[in-house]
Amino acid sequence: MSGKPQDGFELDPQLDADTLLVGDLELSRVLLANDANFPWLILVPMRTGLADLIDAVPDDRAQLMQEVDTVSRALKAITGCDKLNVASLGNMVRQLHVHVIARFEGDAAWPGPIWGKLPAKPYDDDAANKLVEALRARLEITSG
Amino acid sequence: MSGKPQDGFELDPQLDADTLLVGDLELSRVLLANDANFPWLILVPMRTGLADLIDAVPDDRAQLMQEVDTVSRALKAITGCDKLNVASLGNMVRQLHVHVIARFEGDAAWPGPIWGKLPAKPYDDDAANKLVEALRARLEITSG
Repeated sequence: MSGKPQDGFELDPQLDADTLLVGDLELSRVLLANDANFPWLILVPMRTGLADLIDAVPDDRAQLMQEVDTVSRALKAITGCDKLNVASLGNMVRQLHVHVIARFEGDAAWPGPIWGKLPAKPYDDDAANKLVEALRARLEITSG
Repeated sequence: MSGKPQDGFELDPQLDADTLLVGDLELSRVLLANDANFPWLILVPMRTGLADLIDAVPDDRAQLMQEVDTVSRALKAITGCDKLNVASLGNMVRQLHVHVIARFEGDAAWPGPIWGKLPAKPYDDDAANKLVEALRARLEITSG
């Protein structure tokens, strides 16, 4: 199910530059971080004026956590990862966004967190398309 | 309201060693990371066998996110922080736990994530007691 952005919602330009579009769920835009080091998704509630999770109204917060759950399961099913990392940080990009990252024992940052560890390694087109299509199928997103 | 640990629940020894006890909410044990660099709380659902958020049954997941919300608001009210960081990582300690961290522009790890940035700086007793008591009052936890 695809929702509609709140009037005035615009994706933060840095998030836009660093990611590929998977598509929209009811509340959140789902983005794939363009970093082949880690299968790494970012959910951005399509609302204006949110920075922290506590800024969201209760219904939106519940919906966001439901979508984090759905996306986490899809990412785990597709990647067969050992662990999921879920985080709302937002110290640099203030627009509320939630990271959902598939971690593997022995990956490039294991066992530390992934942020700031090594430069992003952009996907080649084939690998990106394959992952995005697999995610769209699992998430029942019909278009990007 | 204080809940009861599930039979067989034991706090991970590493989490125990690195934290001070605030007290128990209905689902989660609330811990203060013994690191004066950052006001940093850790919620541990008192359930056995959970590693990822997706491992929790839906009612527990909803309750955990409600408690994350409550604890986030308490921490922000007490510290007046600029930003909250909320994360479930668990690559090293596998027992499901959620970090809730008060961040300040210009703090020792700003704007990066806090993990692994610098050695923990244990609280002196007065500072720890003051923070724990303020948290217990806000969270309506009567005993540790």
